Formats: sequence, C-alpha cells, structure tokens
Amino acid sequence: MITEAKPGPRERLLEATATLTYRDGVGIGVEALCKAAGVSKRSMYQLFDSKDELLAASLERGASAYVARLLPGADDGRSHRERILHVFEQVELQADAPEFRGCRYLAVQIELKDQSHPASQVAHQIKGNLTAFFRAEAARGGASDPDLLARQLSLVFDGASARAGIGADNLKELIAPTVVALLDTAGMR
Amino acid sequence: MITEAKPGPRERLLEATATLTYRDGVGIGVEALCKAAGVSKRSMYQLFDSKDELLAASLERGASAYVARLLPGADDGRSHRERILHVFEQVELQADAPEFRGCRYLAVQIELKDQSHPASQVAHQIKGNLTAFFRAEAARGGASDPDLLARQLSLVFDGASARAGIGADNLKELIAPTVVALLDTAGMR
Repeated sequence: MITEAKPGPRERLLEATATLTYRDGVGIGVEALCKAAGVSKRSMYQLFDSKDELLAASLERGASAYVARLLPGADDGRSHRERILHVFEQVELQADAPEFRGCRYLAVQIELKDQSHPASQVAHQIKGNLTAFFRAEAARGGASDPDLLARQLSLVFDGASARAGIGADNLKELIAPTVVALLDTAGMR
Repeated sequence: MITEAKPGPRERLLEATATLTYRDGVGIGVEALCKAAGVSKRSMYQLFDSKDELLAASLERGASAYVARLLPGADDGRSHRERILHVFEQVELQADAPEFRGCRYLAVQIELKDQSHPASQVAHQIKGNLTAFFRAEAARGGASDPDLLARQLSLVFDGASARAGIGADNLKELIAPTVVALLDTAGMR
C-alpha cells in the first residue's frame, strides 16, 4: 500500500488560501484561512511574514499547474495556429465547471487594486508569461505583427474568462470564431 | 450668484460609495463609507437597509453617466460601424486617466463573486444594456451574425478595460485594430 505524506502546515495554508480566495475573494480574513488549513495564527505568522506574503506564495505555487492546464506540450507537432487555439479550447472547457470564477490571476489584480502588492506582482508576471507564449507562437507562425496579436489574444483571454466567471457569457461558439478572426487578420499559419 | 443645493446625506453616501468602492473595492467597511460621506451609521441604516443595498443603489445612480460617457448620441449621422468604434475610443481615452481601474460594473461582479447579490444584478443589467446597444448597431449595419458580434464586442470591451485597469496594457493601437478585425469579419458597414 502506498501512503502519501500528509501535507504539512505550510502546504495546507497555501492550498486553503488558493481555494478560499478564489471562491470568496482576497478580502477573506487570516482567521478563516488558518481555520480551513487547521493551522494556528501563531504558526501561520512563523511561516509567512504577512497575509500578503501568504497570498503571493499561494499564487506562485499554482502557476505551474495553471500553465500545464492551459498550454500545449512543447513541440507537439501541431501548427502554431492550432497551439494558440488549444489555449482557448481549455478556457472554454474550464468555464463549464460550476465553480469557475474566471482567471484567478486577473481577479486577484482587480480585487487588490494595487500593482505594487506582492500578490499583484506574482499574478502580473504569470499573465506576462502567457502573453509571451502567444507572442512566440505568433512570430513562429508568421503573424504580420506578433506583438499586436499577442496583446489581442491576451485581451480576448481575459475578457472571455472574466465574462464566463461572472456568468455574463458561457463562451460557446464565441471564443473560437473570435480568435480565428484575429489569427486570420494577422495572416497566421 | 447661483448657489447649488448642498447634497443631502443620501446623495453623499451614494457618491462616497461609488468613489471608494471603485478605488478600494467592495470590501470597504460601512464605517469608512459613512465617515467619507459625513453621515452617521444610524442615519445610513435609516436610508438603506444594508450595505448591499447602498452598493446596488450607488451603481444604479451611476448608470446614466456611464452610458453617456460611452455611447454615441442617438442618430448622430455616423455609420453603425463608426458608432461602435466610438464606444471603444471612449474606453481608450478613459484608460489614460491615472485613477482608471477598469469598468466598475465588471469589477464589482468579479469582487462580489455572487450573481444573486443586488449589486451584481444591477451591474449585470447595465452591462447587458451595452451588449444590447452593440447588437442593435450590428443588426442595422448588416453584420452577418449580430448576436455573435455583440458578444465579441462585449468580450473585447471587458478584456480591454480589465487589462488597462490593472496596468497590464495601455490599449494604444490595440483596441481599434481588434474591433476593426471583428467588424470586417462580420461584414459590418
């Protein structure tokens, strides 16, 4: 029988923070986070300097899973155009889940309203990596203006996840034609 | 000399709530709102059943100014295509202001994470009116699929204001080519 190591207090705090801030917003109190993690406030402040640091660390911890859920594998043999479309297919799939509240890295920045907050900076960088992915694929796929296309795709990504997250749209038969129109206009292969 | 009537407590509360929730988020406390408005908590609860109702009323009060700042005048002689582009020119202009934090009606829904909240419902309806404007112009301008185009334009609107609001993009030379690509693809005059 294989037994997994029980997660320690640090791990439990990061997990609870990721789950509860996504569901309830960054305004959730330290006591609620500690309670959900089963960790005392004293222990929390031994592990993290502040709630701000805990929030930033929880976002950072989720970054690789976020990328893995969205991006295609490296050199998967598909065209650059298809690799970009893959990202948006994932967003459409994710938006189907009843607990979907949009992109957490966008939401946290909108909620904090402070670009200098450590969690905003982590979120900003993670979203910057997504734009960099779009830019690299756009350039390799021969887009007429890879910078512009990468900004457009980032805009569509955030608009789509925001609107699906608040229940303003379900994204069905919306994302694909929008992205295709932009890829076509850019002359993307 | 013309003297304006001094705003009463109700008006001051609505104004303070609009200003402070836009700047700091919906989590701001009732005491801070009352203090900024120069109104006692007791008076506030005589005027509004709850903070939720105050927030909803402050959004509703701003709706006509929001529409006036964004939409073109009725029958201004421009083409339907130009009338749609007008909205996005306004977003680009608004995004230039240092205090710009994106569309307040999007932000409040992302922050509240509760579609049944009275303020979410007000915000949802106001944004629905914008989508309805896009749909009407799309239909009159001969778009191949007015429903799709209206959803696409709403998505671009929210993506653009969200990204500008968090400082991820400044929208320069981004919104116009994005909207034009969608209008062209839809065959819009």
